[in-house]
Amino acid sequence: MKIQNIIKAKEESINLATSPQKKRNNALKLIAQTLRKSKSLILKANKKDIDNAKRSNLSDSLLKRLELNPTKIDEMIQGIHGLINLDDPIGKTLSVMDLDKGLRLLKISSPIGVIGAIFESRPDALVQISCLCIKSGNAVLLKGGSEALNSNKTLFGLIQKAVKKAGLSTNLLYLLETREDVKKILELDKYIDLLVPRGSNEFVKYIMDNTKIPVLGHADGICHVYVDKNANTRKAVRISYDSKCQYAAVCNSMETLLVHKSIAKKFLPIIIKKYLKNNVELRVDDRVRRIVKNKQLKKATEEDWKTEYNDLILSIKIVDNLDQAIKHINKYGSGHTDSIVTENKESAKQFMDLVDSASVMWNASTRFSDGFRYGLGAEVGISTNKVHARGPVGLGGLTIYKFRLIGHGHVVEDYSGESAKRFLHRRIK
Amino acid sequence: MKIQNIIKAKEESINLATSPQKKRNNALKLIAQTLRKSKSLILKANKKDIDNAKRSNLSDSLLKRLELNPTKIDEMIQGIHGLINLDDPIGKTLSVMDLDKGLRLLKISSPIGVIGAIFESRPDALVQISCLCIKSGNAVLLKGGSEALNSNKTLFGLIQKAVKKAGLSTNLLYLLETREDVKKILELDKYIDLLVPRGSNEFVKYIMDNTKIPVLGHADGICHVYVDKNANTRKAVRISYDSKCQYAAVCNSMETLLVHKSIAKKFLPIIIKKYLKNNVELRVDDRVRRIVKNKQLKKATEEDWKTEYNDLILSIKIVDNLDQAIKHINKYGSGHTDSIVTENKESAKQFMDLVDSASVMWNASTRFSDGFRYGLGAEVGISTNKVHARGPVGLGGLTIYKFRLIGHGHVVEDYSGESAKRFLHRRIK
Repeated sequence: MKIQNIIKAKEESINLATSPQKKRNNALKLIAQTLRKSKSLILKANKKDIDNAKRSNLSDSLLKRLELNPTKIDEMIQGIHGLINLDDPIGKTLSVMDLDKGLRLLKISSPIGVIGAIFESRPDALVQISCLCIKSGNAVLLKGGSEALNSNKTLFGLIQKAVKKAGLSTNLLYLLETREDVKKILELDKYIDLLVPRGSNEFVKYIMDNTKIPVLGHADGICHVYVDKNANTRKAVRISYDSKCQYAAVCNSMETLLVHKSIAKKFLPIIIKKYLKNNVELRVDDRVRRIVKNKQLKKATEEDWKTEYNDLILSIKIVDNLDQAIKHINKYGSGHTDSIVTENKESAKQFMDLVDSASVMWNASTRFSDGFRYGLGAEVGISTNKVHARGPVGLGGLTIYKFRLIGHGHVVEDYSGESAKRFLHRRIK
Repeated sequence: MKIQNIIKAKEESINLATSPQKKRNNALKLIAQTLRKSKSLILKANKKDIDNAKRSNLSDSLLKRLELNPTKIDEMIQGIHGLINLDDPIGKTLSVMDLDKGLRLLKISSPIGVIGAIFESRPDALVQISCLCIKSGNAVLLKGGSEALNSNKTLFGLIQKAVKKAGLSTNLLYLLETREDVKKILELDKYIDLLVPRGSNEFVKYIMDNTKIPVLGHADGICHVYVDKNANTRKAVRISYDSKCQYAAVCNSMETLLVHKSIAKKFLPIIIKKYLKNNVELRVDDRVRRIVKNKQLKKATEEDWKTEYNDLILSIKIVDNLDQAIKHINKYGSGHTDSIVTENKESAKQFMDLVDSASVMWNASTRFSDGFRYGLGAEVGISTNKVHARGPVGLGGLTIYKFRLIGHGHVVEDYSGESAKRFLHRRIK
């Protein structure tokens, strides 16, 4: 990595910030075009990564994420066209106010500047993140999983060619190749405005703990479903099952199931049977073991309430009331996504009011917490931050705003002291 | 400082987040009331601080900021009433979308949680910040200048009484008393969601460099005025003078004046005469010294372009063109506020497009960059961040949002695989 390239990216980001939407969309079109034309080239590079991965005995799930095929490339291309159709996120006039006659203040949406994106082994992530940054007028430094190096290099080369053809600077995108590079960019808070890390919890946490650059994302995804005493059992079973089993290896899947003591005897035998049938390992508290006597139920420890399994493992706890459920979630949860199953509107409101998470749900699976399902179009990631952007983040998370004040020789002295002029503060928009 | 109090503040912030506006506004009314009734008590405490400050030979400008009088207390009370009249910043429905029939997603504005506010010696800042946090539903940890300790303790006690009377928890506000306390809270990223430091550049920078908690604010305020070749000389003189001299000790005053070479001979003799008459120390480049031969002009060094004087000192540089001015500002500026003086619309647009600062101005004094003047009502501070909030920050900077998803037993599995249901994604609001 050369620091000179990061500085160039910063310089070029300034020009991109005011480029017409047409130019940025045209770059996206050309990227889609070149991906369509270069399928065999991409698949050949990907094959190298797959072969290497097999030789190093990578897990099947990792191989699956790493592997590209013509359908996956078509999906990437579709994704780019979806992005082209989204409104321009930058240059929007968010508000206009006349501070006084001839002194107008505008608040205009703008890109953030330089984004550092660090992502997992899926090579399609490189395409998606590059396109999101181009659309929102940001320069981007990209670091993908080392297993995907050949795929990423090829995809990056194609994107660079398309960007050049569209008349944009190739300095806007920069591919980092080693973990050492990542360590180096963590120091560059002068040139990088936002980091968007995706991947393992440990890695995201490492980044959050070792940089002054703002980080958008989440380390843990410890999500809960709480089955209230007034739950409809059918809905409770559907939601508890889907939240854990629909796809266990992701951040919005449930890790702990909380059950109200009054419904436990009715609900637990049904859901536990269903989980065990589907090979879910269950770690439960003593009260659960008193209701369902099954040797496959393991004893949950304090550690379990704090653990994101990211796997077909679930902890279950019985609570005395709604308040206890809320307190448990606010204590052990990660502020990601939590759901209540109940037919009682008041309990639902109380849960959604008091659970301090990015997404709170009522009678719905935690698995809905996702940019595509939330209708945001493309997704940058899911944030558990309490500032800037929270929950599933779309293009909006890659923008900020800038004030423009237009006067005619106005000075503050005229608005000070004894004979001070008064401000109008008339909102125009 | 007891960590238990910070944890309590965090817990109570959850309840405050959903408190009705009426209750929060009522607390503000009661604070205003008690301040009005307790003027002599406040002034007595303040007198102690003033006496101590005089004994330790504090500077006159610091004494002035520290000193309270009946008028200043009236202004505080007026400020609180202004705040009461502002719209409730939390609980606003920002958007509504039906993801599918019976599956509705709402995005609702919410408080951030626990704010750590560290501010300068003005005791009125304690009142202003406490009230901003109550209005926006945030708990707050307060640390004022040690010179103001007696004033702050008294004001804090009065606020606590009013908060209690309004039926809110006194755990929502906590007064930190020592610098050691500040050091300790920098570690508490688990309980504190945002830091808002105000005060000396070094201190703000120290905080930014020593915490994982997001920080809202600015270290430097290196603001520029660029006088373009097409500037109206009268406007250029007014704006250049106001930007430096209207109040030099603040972040939005100008530190470097850039002048286009074509207008330098006409403009510089006038403005330099005016500055020197008003005791502004001038540090200028060689090209300026060739035009205005005056022994009072000091030679500017590289260091000058990077320096926030916060005083009646100004650096002046001649540039060849607009592009050079923009590059100088983006290189040496702090992204705070920069202004162009020109009658050429295209040059103004280019300047405002390409200068990467929170506030960019055309024919207006940099001193306008301020929450009150920008019509935001109360001001939290001025941010040079590129995320969350940029420029003068009002109540909006103390809020974020939360997603609420309301379903009827909806699960993600129904939207997956071969016979997947399709999402509606119909925007309602």
